[in-house]
Amino acid sequence: MPENKLKKDELQERIRQAPFHKWLNLNVKDLTEEGIVVSVGWREEFVVNAERGYSHGGILATVIDVAADYALAAKLGRPLPTIDMRVDYHRPAMQGELTAKARVIKLGGSFCTAEAEIFDGDGRLLASGRGVYYSG
Amino acid sequence: MPENKLKKDELQERIRQAPFHKWLNLNVKDLTEEGIVVSVGWREEFVVNAERGYSHGGILATVIDVAADYALAAKLGRPLPTIDMRVDYHRPAMQGELTAKARVIKLGGSFCTAEAEIFDGDGRLLASGRGVYYSG
Amino acid sequence: MPENKLKKDELQERIRQAPFHKWLNLNVKDLTEEGIVVSVGWREEFVVNAERGYSHGGILATVIDVAADYALAAKLGRPLPTIDMRVDYHRPAMQGELTAKARVIKLGGSFCTAEAEIFDGDGRLLASGRGVYYSG
Amino acid sequence: MPENKLKKDELQERIRQAPFHKWLNLNVKDLTEEGIVVSVGWREEFVVNAERGYSHGGILATVIDVAADYALAAKLGRPLPTIDMRVDYHRPAMQGELTAKARVIKLGGSFCTAEAEIFDGDGRLLASGRGVYYSG
Repeated sequence: MPENKLKKDELQERIRQAPFHKWLNLNVKDLTEEGIVVSVGWREEFVVNAERGYSHGGILATVIDVAADYALAAKLGRPLPTIDMRVDYHRPAMQGELTAKARVIKLGGSFCTAEAEIFDGDGRLLASGRGVYYSG
Repeated sequence: MPENKLKKDELQERIRQAPFHKWLNLNVKDLTEEGIVVSVGWREEFVVNAERGYSHGGILATVIDVAADYALAAKLGRPLPTIDMRVDYHRPAMQGELTAKARVIKLGGSFCTAEAEIFDGDGRLLASGRGVYYSG
Repeated sequence: MPENKLKKDELQERIRQAPFHKWLNLNVKDLTEEGIVVSVGWREEFVVNAERGYSHGGILATVIDVAADYALAAKLGRPLPTIDMRVDYHRPAMQGELTAKARVIKLGGSFCTAEAEIFDGDGRLLASGRGVYYSG
Repeated sequence: MPENKLKKDELQERIRQAPFHKWLNLNVKDLTEEGIVVSVGWREEFVVNAERGYSHGGILATVIDVAADYALAAKLGRPLPTIDMRVDYHRPAMQGELTAKARVIKLGGSFCTAEAEIFDGDGRLLASGRGVYYSG
């Protein structure tokens, strides 16, 4: 795996250029050669079940996609278009900050694969998944 | 395939109970025995690429999930928890109303499968995908 | 969607060039502008559960991949390398000929998407899925 | 994560009960609390491209599914039915023994998730993927 091309503050700047990422309160918490850690600040709009108060799965799917893509951006200098993406839901995401950890699986000349996991404040796995990205 | 248990206005009422669905401006446009059609009103927050102005893929993933789940809800009377979900991206979603068409693939006693396609105002396919839902 | 570049017997010839396809007893049963129909002859080696006698899911995954790829081959003149593939299992595949129907979802200059469904001799849906293929 | 319920030789015995697993020359090479390692002996029937000699992707998909399922079997005492499965292809699998490493992502009362990676004799990643399994 090659060395990172972006530093943490450059990655943060890139990720915040997207209006949707600002809306998600995305912040880069850590960046190492092994991957990235991103936080998501809770919004009341995330809620799908008003009674029980947990987040819509689409928010988690989005976070998987973003975190995986920016794990690639750290290595390549830019995020890539997503070809396809899938997510497994393990546990409802209740109100509170979310943390996503992402890493590159494969860097290829035509397409790349990266994966991410989302945890709640107690370190419990809420969702995991991966995306395939176009580097051609 | 069994008959629908919900009418169009009941489906609309159910879908709008979720704060995230209201934020997405989701509306049920059509409901037949073959499936449902849902519209999504554009928001500036959807944008991922500020320069080119297209939507974040996470929005499309969310719409695939919701539309597929409510195609099941029409048959079963309620939406189901998503076990896993995947989406293929075919074309950037530029500013404008999105339309999603969804149908049930398989109703099962333990889990169900449904799929959805998203189109732009000119009828071009933007994304497609499916989810597996827990009916146990 | 463009017209087919291959005729049924050309598609059959191409598909049978692969030793694994011969082992699977794959035959092209039909080819239209809308897609292809492929049959798979049963083998005792397919069985995963010796007592109950149903096929291994890996056989169904393989058939989804092949059928979807050759739906693309009909349009493009050649099969494409699979980037990724997923399959949903709906019902155990008991002993007997399997039939797969496949169609193209999206032809793109860099990657293409196609899907397939597998049925048993009574027309029951056993598995469905799709692949993303590299056309670059 | 709970302790393993099966020992290596019990897992091997279980895996070899399936005729398709025997055909694949599957052998359990290692079993720890973190996961399992499985080998696959090459067969000429695996080949999809007679000229270049690499394996059909369906073989790799099958191995992902089996290895992930038996990582669950080690923890639960039995393999589970696959609900759905997906695989990413990273590199063609040329002639030679394949090695799959698998681990459990989530044990749940209704469904479980596990993932696997396949390597060639030089330790290069050929394919990776995961399955969702029914434990209800």
